Amino acid sequence: MKSLSIFCKSVKVSLDTGPDIRDITPALEQLIDDLRVENGNLCATMVGSTGSLTTIEYEPGVVRDLMAAVNRLAPPDLEYEHEKAWHDGNGHSHVQAALLGPSIVLPIRKGRLKLGTWQQVVALNHDNRSRQRTIEVTIIGTVSERRG
Amino acid sequence: MKSLSIFCKSVKVSLDTGPDIRDITPALEQLIDDLRVENGNLCATMVGSTGSLTTIEYEPGVVRDLMAAVNRLAPPDLEYEHEKAWHDGNGHSHVQAALLGPSIVLPIRKGRLKLGTWQQVVALNHDNRSRQRTIEVTIIGTVSERRG
Amino acid sequence: MKSLSIFCKSVKVSLDTGPDIRDITPALEQLIDDLRVENGNLCATMVGSTGSLTTIEYEPGVVRDLMAAVNRLAPPDLEYEHEKAWHDGNGHSHVQAALLGPSIVLPIRKGRLKLGTWQQVVALNHDNRSRQRTIEVTIIGTVSERRG
Repeated sequence: MKSLSIFCKSVKVSLDTGPDIRDITPALEQLIDDLRVENGNLCATMVGSTGSLTTIEYEPGVVRDLMAAVNRLAPPDLEYEHEKAWHDGNGHSHVQAALLGPSIVLPIRKGRLKLGTWQQVVALNHDNRSRQRTIEVTIIGTVSERRG
Repeated sequence: MKSLSIFCKSVKVSLDTGPDIRDITPALEQLIDDLRVENGNLCATMVGSTGSLTTIEYEPGVVRDLMAAVNRLAPPDLEYEHEKAWHDGNGHSHVQAALLGPSIVLPIRKGRLKLGTWQQVVALNHDNRSRQRTIEVTIIGTVSERRG
Repeated sequence: MKSLSIFCKSVKVSLDTGPDIRDITPALEQLIDDLRVENGNLCATMVGSTGSLTTIEYEPGVVRDLMAAVNRLAPPDLEYEHEKAWHDGNGHSHVQAALLGPSIVLPIRKGRLKLGTWQQVVALNHDNRSRQRTIEVTIIGTVSERRG
């Protein structure tokens, strides 16, 4: 059996005022390609308590539908206890992010993410201002011996 | 310390029109058993953007309660932007799946999934038609030397 | 490259009647420290079908806001099919836990969880009674050779 390798990397993405949603699949695929990982697991975690990760079909309609759904889960115009102490206007952002969750695990097969054809990995910003987000990525798997 | 092994497998499950929910615990336990994994992690990811994974007590009442809750999160009879472009009637399916999330991580201890007595691993289909679903499974752990 | 190690541990936490939310970050950091893990992944899974895991800014306001949001997702006073068979009054608990999900993956970098400054890992109890909860923790990573 091939021996296992681990790689600890990060990906940065600029996001607009939430809810904003960006496709990070190309950045993750690039990492896998650069590291020549063949088979294994990619674990990704959003750093920060007002962001989240999931997968969707990244087309403009679904993106807007998900934004609307996220705002139904924790509407920006509700009253939040967080506001009473902090007055930073992002109580809903914290709740939305906690409900969606910060982490995701994705399969790597034959050097590619193994997802559906219409399934992309997305980073969400729920904060009430634009944010440069960091996503920590840990890859565990076997490495190909193909040469460049 | 025992050396680590990795196994990349998949599980297939047939699901009815969404929301449909099926117990995949036996299929995952079978994999662990066949591979003789002793201690480690099982990561599972739903392939496709209208399916999801979670755990529940798999009894008919809770299953129906979860179906109802999922349809409250993104009701099929709302208007979705996805529909305006694609007219395939499954805008709600995409949103439901993105909110629940495609992946799960489960502990393997002494050759078994370590879950609650009443806690099963379930695959959900949110699509508006029946689907044969593929779940990619990556197991990392130590392997038992017991013989057959 | 340093060789990979795996550690299978568990953390226990006492939680009040749900929704209750507790910060488990110190317990996880303690494990990483005790095991001298340098870089890798921490996977945590809630054992039991009426609990869940996520991250939030653990301050009293957000904690109450998340409790309220969780009770909007599956209100305790709705009618649940689970009740008709089991009469244990926790139909909403099962649904809440399934929607939030039982598992989380967190990056370990330089011997610490790599999270946002205001981002803590929390365990949620959704059950209608207080519970001693077990969280299974699997850590895969490289180990530091620093001495005590």
